[in-house]
Amino acid sequence: MNKARLEALSDGVFAVAMTLLVFDIKLPNFPGTVMDAQLWHALTIISPHIVVYMSTFVVLSTMWVNHHFLFQTFALEVDRRLNLLNLLYLMFIAFVPFSASFIGAYSDHQPAVILYGVNLLAITFMSVFIVVYVFHTQGTEHLSDRLLNQSRFRSVLNIVCYLLGILLSFVNVYVSLVLYIVPVIFNFIPGTLDFTERFFGFDLG
Amino acid sequence: MNKARLEALSDGVFAVAMTLLVFDIKLPNFPGTVMDAQLWHALTIISPHIVVYMSTFVVLSTMWVNHHFLFQTFALEVDRRLNLLNLLYLMFIAFVPFSASFIGAYSDHQPAVILYGVNLLAITFMSVFIVVYVFHTQGTEHLSDRLLNQSRFRSVLNIVCYLLGILLSFVNVYVSLVLYIVPVIFNFIPGTLDFTERFFGFDLG
Amino acid sequence: MNKARLEALSDGVFAVAMTLLVFDIKLPNFPGTVMDAQLWHALTIISPHIVVYMSTFVVLSTMWVNHHFLFQTFALEVDRRLNLLNLLYLMFIAFVPFSASFIGAYSDHQPAVILYGVNLLAITFMSVFIVVYVFHTQGTEHLSDRLLNQSRFRSVLNIVCYLLGILLSFVNVYVSLVLYIVPVIFNFIPGTLDFTERFFGFDLG
Amino acid sequence: MNKARLEALSDGVFAVAMTLLVFDIKLPNFPGTVMDAQLWHALTIISPHIVVYMSTFVVLSTMWVNHHFLFQTFALEVDRRLNLLNLLYLMFIAFVPFSASFIGAYSDHQPAVILYGVNLLAITFMSVFIVVYVFHTQGTEHLSDRLLNQSRFRSVLNIVCYLLGILLSFVNVYVSLVLYIVPVIFNFIPGTLDFTERFFGFDLG
Repeated sequence: MNKARLEALSDGVFAVAMTLLVFDIKLPNFPGTVMDAQLWHALTIISPHIVVYMSTFVVLSTMWVNHHFLFQTFALEVDRRLNLLNLLYLMFIAFVPFSASFIGAYSDHQPAVILYGVNLLAITFMSVFIVVYVFHTQGTEHLSDRLLNQSRFRSVLNIVCYLLGILLSFVNVYVSLVLYIVPVIFNFIPGTLDFTERFFGFDLG
Repeated sequence: MNKARLEALSDGVFAVAMTLLVFDIKLPNFPGTVMDAQLWHALTIISPHIVVYMSTFVVLSTMWVNHHFLFQTFALEVDRRLNLLNLLYLMFIAFVPFSASFIGAYSDHQPAVILYGVNLLAITFMSVFIVVYVFHTQGTEHLSDRLLNQSRFRSVLNIVCYLLGILLSFVNVYVSLVLYIVPVIFNFIPGTLDFTERFFGFDLG
Repeated sequence: MNKARLEALSDGVFAVAMTLLVFDIKLPNFPGTVMDAQLWHALTIISPHIVVYMSTFVVLSTMWVNHHFLFQTFALEVDRRLNLLNLLYLMFIAFVPFSASFIGAYSDHQPAVILYGVNLLAITFMSVFIVVYVFHTQGTEHLSDRLLNQSRFRSVLNIVCYLLGILLSFVNVYVSLVLYIVPVIFNFIPGTLDFTERFFGFDLG
Repeated sequence: MNKARLEALSDGVFAVAMTLLVFDIKLPNFPGTVMDAQLWHALTIISPHIVVYMSTFVVLSTMWVNHHFLFQTFALEVDRRLNLLNLLYLMFIAFVPFSASFIGAYSDHQPAVILYGVNLLAITFMSVFIVVYVFHTQGTEHLSDRLLNQSRFRSVLNIVCYLLGILLSFVNVYVSLVLYIVPVIFNFIPGTLDFTERFFGFDLG
């Protein structure tokens, strides 16, 4: 199996999914002459969709950075099983534009919040399956303890945040939305993990 | 001819076709205030589309794995004729989002089931043409008997399942849908072919 | 300038344009219960769109094969001007889904036939500009006379067919549609040029 | 971090965004029989969308050429922070199809003109951040003074034109549209910068 083509397909799916998010933002049609004030008002009405676009773009970016890292650093080669796991992973990535469009339209409704969380959770689980499979078949000798601990910390954090977000949607959907953003901080913004270690006085190796 | 660009275009077509499948899943618009119960109900109504999305993503993944394998292992180089056959193959791959959207809307109607089957059959025939052409022009000396027999077994299985699925749609469309999924098992899930050999006591070389 | 990224962007634009052609094929919505006979009828009604999808996919494939050939064999390197010409070329490639959707809806109306022809003509002219620029800056020493003559023959043939197609649309649009397909034969199907040479007793070098 | 995959994702996002611009051009539906004159009229009505398609394709091409140049010549390697900045840059690139569709529908209305300008400005700022970060971490020893000055000149020109365009939209939106096109001239058309230097008698090193 050829790692380059697996990465090419994955990058293609990510690029299409990320770019198509914007097609969920649609202005209403104004029959006849339209005033500037109406357009400004329309922009404020669709602003939740713009917020969802930006957040979901960042969420998918986070997933892409992790995918990149996983196949760059952890997986030395690709076999048929790993290829299969990656394609199922991509199935949930390509589903994100639908979840995002749902939450863009009904961000304060529980069904949309739960579906979005379940989608993110499914991606995380597939990504954990891939890591476990890669470690099982290719070993971890080429990786430092610190790398492995950071990876474990991130996986657990993601699962906890998404699970908690889904559960707390029964109480308050806005709490869920905040929880969905937390993993982005520790996966996307460089240095946050180091800061957390120093702040809470633990050490990932 | 440059194998890398043929693969890049193919990966692009696969990535776009796979990712755009999700745009067939659309929630109805609810004018005015909407209740959570209405959204849950809407999700159950569109659930056939979600099932079709997932199945078709897996079907396209299977096709991609085969394409990958064919150009990785069988085809050592690419000439103008092979390029042409591959582009016609991609024409049927890029048609899948339409067949899938048709069967998503009318999964229990024969026209949708037949069109979906004809599309999968066309892809398989193009893929067989490519294999035959590659073997004819580049020989099979670099391939083991086992690889060749497995490839033949898969081609025959795909053609039989899709043809049978199309024919049996006159009796029962659900039988057809099951038959369309069978090739996925033997092309996508690693080890199923080995298991079948041992179970039925035959040997592909 | 990096030839690999120019090719990656071009392959991306081609892949997206080719795959999105299928989204022009849309089944009408049937409110309430639908009969199989209605679906078969709907398929016949949208059949012109399917024909346009297939023809345009082949037309874009032809363009891609030429683009591939041009940057593989003629252009040894890429400078800023060549990059610019290629991006304008891609602008007309990415316009094809619109022309195709127009002619799919109104294949027997002159405006659609003319727009489609003008689009193909614009692509051909941009491609000729690229070839002329490449020959001017990088020379033709590395190319055989036969290759150069074949390239000239194809360029002239394309321009004549598209121009004639546009003009004859004033007489009969179906003649135009046939003329638009002729260049595909000599650019896409291998061996047709050799056959024509032998048949008409001329020699391209 | 792997520069190749960052470029692959970026090229994918650019390719999808550029190709999807055309989907903003839509012909009205004509119920019943349609006359050629109606279709010609429809084409004139949608002509602003065609102009916006072409201009925005060229604007995105300009951005792509700059991105290409930046990662080809300035950035020798990619770290996690640079990856992050690039993904935020792509977030604004992928937003362009929405801004373009807005200005295509309401090109003479200030909200559309401002949103388009703000989007272009955001892209420019992200691109300046990337350049500053790359210079800070990887130094400028491998770059000539002339390259650096040209880069600074272009950045300042872009920011001034877009800012001025946004401000002058309060006076006249057409002045803004002209200002948005100016940077294209100096970033996309080769030789304009050399000409300007000679014409105004200054020297970028």
